[in-house]
Amino acid sequence: MELFSAIEQRRAIKHYDTEASIPEKDFEQIMSATLLSPTSYNIQHWRFVRIKSLELRSKLRDAAWGQQQIDDASEVVILCADTQAWSDRPERYWANADQATQAVLVPMIASFYAGKAQTQRDEAMRSCGMAAQTLMLSAKALGYDTCPMIGFDSDAVADIIQLPDKHVITMLITIGKAKDEAKVRGGQLPLSEVLLDNHF
Amino acid sequence: MELFSAIEQRRAIKHYDTEASIPEKDFEQIMSATLLSPTSYNIQHWRFVRIKSLELRSKLRDAAWGQQQIDDASEVVILCADTQAWSDRPERYWANADQATQAVLVPMIASFYAGKAQTQRDEAMRSCGMAAQTLMLSAKALGYDTCPMIGFDSDAVADIIQLPDKHVITMLITIGKAKDEAKVRGGQLPLSEVLLDNHF
Repeated sequence: MELFSAIEQRRAIKHYDTEASIPEKDFEQIMSATLLSPTSYNIQHWRFVRIKSLELRSKLRDAAWGQQQIDDASEVVILCADTQAWSDRPERYWANADQATQAVLVPMIASFYAGKAQTQRDEAMRSCGMAAQTLMLSAKALGYDTCPMIGFDSDAVADIIQLPDKHVITMLITIGKAKDEAKVRGGQLPLSEVLLDNHF
Repeated sequence: MELFSAIEQRRAIKHYDTEASIPEKDFEQIMSATLLSPTSYNIQHWRFVRIKSLELRSKLRDAAWGQQQIDDASEVVILCADTQAWSDRPERYWANADQATQAVLVPMIASFYAGKAQTQRDEAMRSCGMAAQTLMLSAKALGYDTCPMIGFDSDAVADIIQLPDKHVITMLITIGKAKDEAKVRGGQLPLSEVLLDNHF
């Protein structure tokens, strides 16, 4: 699908065809494309949890205050991040670079993140945001719909997926086939209101 | 451009053709597409500052520790967010919804964000992440290259763009024509390492 069509046609879909499913090769294509999103210093700190178990799905639905799309969608992916990925064998992230580049870049990673909890958390949200949009556009291009969600009890979801220490949950995405067409967009602010020249 | 090609071809480009420029209609297409990215409750809290002034560009380059792409790219956009957008006439965000939907949704916005500084900040990073990826893919589809950046002195940039209180800077993106081809990707983790079934 042409990029601008995918951008226009992507909408948050809450009602799914419960009979639909996503072939494994499509799911893999979506996720492989998602991994081509950028992360700072290429730290790739995202961790994606795919909920296959129906039992976990229903616990998850309860943790999301009963939102039905978690039961009805074909796939549910929870976007998490390891806030300490910057310190976990960072030479892996630049393994293909030449020695001189590695010698400069790899030590910069620790000096950028070490001891900065808010920077680490910001980075988790930002990177998973970029990955989420790639995931949703890729799904759309293959004929699927998505719903990005943050309306859930994060502690309860952390328990369900056994989230390790120093990891954060950034959002959840449902993927499937829309049952109904999306409604008209809620009410978009004009570009002139959100795009400023030079300063506020 | 086909979506998956745009995803594959988007790379962080630091060396730009200084003779290139972006026609206004292309810039507008990129930004209009960017605004079709999702935000929670459709709060559209993003604010984009386009640096046109050459004087501000050079201040910005200094605040980014001399990174040359800020001088050399055709456009520089700073992605910010108003962390209080949720409370700023939220009925605008659902103006096109029916009365019943508005009556449910609009009051939910305040109860989700009020008094939750970390949630507000997370949302800024996440939404701007999604918007950033739309911006970068849209630029790629029109033949331009981009570099997402967080390596700058945020306080100094806030001064330069006169960032209002309760707003945050999430990242910066340069846009232009690459001078050289991108190098091979740094070292990608396999999907099997970052995609987990059901739990950690």
